[in-house]
Amino acid sequence: MSAVITVAKMTCPFMSRLPGQFVRHYGNAIMRQYGEMCPVFSTIMKARPITSLSSTTDSEGENKCPFLNGKNVVKQASREVQEDVIDLSTRENGMSRHENVRAAVRASLERHGAGAGGTRNISGNTILHEALEAKLASIHKKDAALLFTSCYVANDSTLYTLAKALPDCHIFSDEGNHASMIQGIRNSGVPKHIFQHNDPAHLEELLLSVDVAIPKIVAFETVHSMTGAVCPLGELCDVAHKYGAITYVDEVHAVGLYGENGGGIADRDGLQDKIDVVSGTLGKAFGNIGGYIAGNGALVDMIRSYAAGFIFTTSLPPTVVSGALAAVNTLSSPEGRALRALHQKNVRYLRDALIKNGLPVEHCPSHILPVHVGDPLLCTKVSDELLRHYGHYVQAINYPTVPRGQEKLRIAPTPQHTPPMMDLFVADLLTVWKEQELPLHTKNCTEECTFCKKPLLFDALEARERCAPVCDKPFCPQLAECF
Amino acid sequence: MSAVITVAKMTCPFMSRLPGQFVRHYGNAIMRQYGEMCPVFSTIMKARPITSLSSTTDSEGENKCPFLNGKNVVKQASREVQEDVIDLSTRENGMSRHENVRAAVRASLERHGAGAGGTRNISGNTILHEALEAKLASIHKKDAALLFTSCYVANDSTLYTLAKALPDCHIFSDEGNHASMIQGIRNSGVPKHIFQHNDPAHLEELLLSVDVAIPKIVAFETVHSMTGAVCPLGELCDVAHKYGAITYVDEVHAVGLYGENGGGIADRDGLQDKIDVVSGTLGKAFGNIGGYIAGNGALVDMIRSYAAGFIFTTSLPPTVVSGALAAVNTLSSPEGRALRALHQKNVRYLRDALIKNGLPVEHCPSHILPVHVGDPLLCTKVSDELLRHYGHYVQAINYPTVPRGQEKLRIAPTPQHTPPMMDLFVADLLTVWKEQELPLHTKNCTEECTFCKKPLLFDALEARERCAPVCDKPFCPQLAECF
Repeated sequence: MSAVITVAKMTCPFMSRLPGQFVRHYGNAIMRQYGEMCPVFSTIMKARPITSLSSTTDSEGENKCPFLNGKNVVKQASREVQEDVIDLSTRENGMSRHENVRAAVRASLERHGAGAGGTRNISGNTILHEALEAKLASIHKKDAALLFTSCYVANDSTLYTLAKALPDCHIFSDEGNHASMIQGIRNSGVPKHIFQHNDPAHLEELLLSVDVAIPKIVAFETVHSMTGAVCPLGELCDVAHKYGAITYVDEVHAVGLYGENGGGIADRDGLQDKIDVVSGTLGKAFGNIGGYIAGNGALVDMIRSYAAGFIFTTSLPPTVVSGALAAVNTLSSPEGRALRALHQKNVRYLRDALIKNGLPVEHCPSHILPVHVGDPLLCTKVSDELLRHYGHYVQAINYPTVPRGQEKLRIAPTPQHTPPMMDLFVADLLTVWKEQELPLHTKNCTEECTFCKKPLLFDALEARERCAPVCDKPFCPQLAECF
Repeated sequence: MSAVITVAKMTCPFMSRLPGQFVRHYGNAIMRQYGEMCPVFSTIMKARPITSLSSTTDSEGENKCPFLNGKNVVKQASREVQEDVIDLSTRENGMSRHENVRAAVRASLERHGAGAGGTRNISGNTILHEALEAKLASIHKKDAALLFTSCYVANDSTLYTLAKALPDCHIFSDEGNHASMIQGIRNSGVPKHIFQHNDPAHLEELLLSVDVAIPKIVAFETVHSMTGAVCPLGELCDVAHKYGAITYVDEVHAVGLYGENGGGIADRDGLQDKIDVVSGTLGKAFGNIGGYIAGNGALVDMIRSYAAGFIFTTSLPPTVVSGALAAVNTLSSPEGRALRALHQKNVRYLRDALIKNGLPVEHCPSHILPVHVGDPLLCTKVSDELLRHYGHYVQAINYPTVPRGQEKLRIAPTPQHTPPMMDLFVADLLTVWKEQELPLHTKNCTEECTFCKKPLLFDALEARERCAPVCDKPFCPQLAECF
């Protein structure tokens, strides 16, 4: 008993490190997720499992954590706060928690166990892997697809193998490309040419400098992870093909989120036949883990036969493959289309609310809403304050992920966010913004497109659908053309 | 009805491709695993779920697959055959199906969902990842560990990053090293020196050729995946350290299978302090997916901060991390020690049975039993015949996985195999061996150690424990020294 009394006078070493507001918002989720790691709380849980943690604040003091006794760190939130809180432990928050996905993982676990048991070539192949590859090929309108343990490995291994296989190959790489593509290109050792981000004119200039008879690969992303930019896909592919290059297009930040079947920007814009090899992830929108490429059958067979990163590694577990298949199926169904419509609606709502309040939202035709800060310490400070005092998790993006001076908050609403949640977030961000004396209603990045340098008219962002040729710069991804 | 009658006259396009013996042995497992993929069988299953498929052979004809009607491909096996068959769908066949692992995956799925939701640095980190890293560090007696999506990525990224970080570094690489290590070493672009497989004398010769002041890395594996060789770990590390090199040791084929806590060969032989960086897998013995390194805290922090393959990829799902943690915990417990003892007993039993029958088992101090064939077509033929006519799955290993002329069957018994199962396997292998007119009781590889070229005395293989210095070649991994 004396031990317990002593403990009761100490603060909990875990909970005391967390801000009061955060614990108040997420107490339930924290306890559910980490309760069993706590030597004190896990003992209580074993004796009497608690389904709702609001009961820790009621009169049954003998079941309380001695650290929390008298402190009441976890207390019942007011009704209006509760309505704005996502209960992380029960809400179907994206594909990772979708019941279709969880049911598929559950069934696969009981039937096949936790691991695949080998490489794809040596006892680690199943009909599930092949079914997922067939489904992925179909959403991208390709002959075949090939799974990898991640899209990092898919990009690295495929570009490396392809560049080595094509005699005297040259690679043309967008300057904004992801580390995984850069790694594969660099390691292949073939001559490389870096073109300006999303700039077909510069790409053409570089392509012109190499003999037309030499094999070429042009590699870029549709949605850029940090700027939220959407590439001029048709234009980049047309220029590449004009000079006989293969197009390698990373749709990692677009699959599941755009297009009739969740096939990405190419699916949305009807440009799938212009892509020779597409890569995607089973993480992010699909909520699991793993990566893939899709393309021509012979090309995919060649990668299957020669890519070390595919051959010499344990294949994805059946649980992951089943979960990913359920996610891809769900997002290519009417339910997926409804989620994507809601997602776009929320993106518009949040973007409008941020702009209306004078926050410097960068040019953003996609679901990624970068808010310009321009200073690494202030950027981290704003992110920290939002988490510590308001319970909002927003990523602060600093160098080397973005160039110095382009430090930003990276905001990505989901279909699950509600208007009141987004209003509260904008109000809290505004408070922190003012506390840090950051400028509002600036000119530099709220009113000008980062690509065409024209005034940024967010209302016209869906110009591709609405045929509003506001921008006259050729290849402007935002407003150039009507599809 | 007419459609059903027509169908009933056709053979099942799936089952008819499988050999009768295989279907008889594994019918239950096949139906459980793939039944729902079959458009005919899945309809029947939905109407009346069948828990034991033996009922498909009883009188309830209306619930049978029309393809199977009148064919009875799936029939009840005789009692003596049944006793020798592993029911893949229920038996706890390794860690992948162990109840501890499945319970952990199940709980994690309900609590956290199917995916991690981000990279380790951006919202994809959990206390589970850190708990697994702490456990892995402890079984290897290191300060810290770092998870990767696979050990392919762990080896590739760590060697690449380490070699780039050490100024003017040279790498010394065993000629038998795995593709993942070769890839990382080659891509780093630093000068490399290839030493003969498991040969400390040759390593020393190469180390002597480089200025002692230059940073060096020596990289090798403890258990070789294809030869089953166990390296002279202490000797290789001592030579490396004598010349100031860091030792990078891959224990992928040893973790979970050797040592008091399943830490591998170094754990078994008490040599963990001689390894600077160890890499391992969460696949294979641990039955899940993923890889890791463990080592000095500052070194691990450096890799965490600079390895692109760690930073720019979605982190392992909580389900995988929980499953792996349960597997590592189980295999470092008394249950794991009992499983390892049974495993070694089975390895000895099967090796003895193969040798007694004159089959050319190669020098094999580990659990991998390579049987020399020496011809790629015959090797594949033996493997195919064993699967088609006897239901045994044995891997045929041909070039480029092994050098030409070293084609072999790669046999790896598990703790779950019983003596009657192994006896049946040896008898069936002998039948196929004779049918293919392959030689028995040959001298070339059954009676000579591939390392020391002395007569191979399998009884003396545990010489390290029993202090029998039969071999006088220095550094012989088999018999050289008493620990």
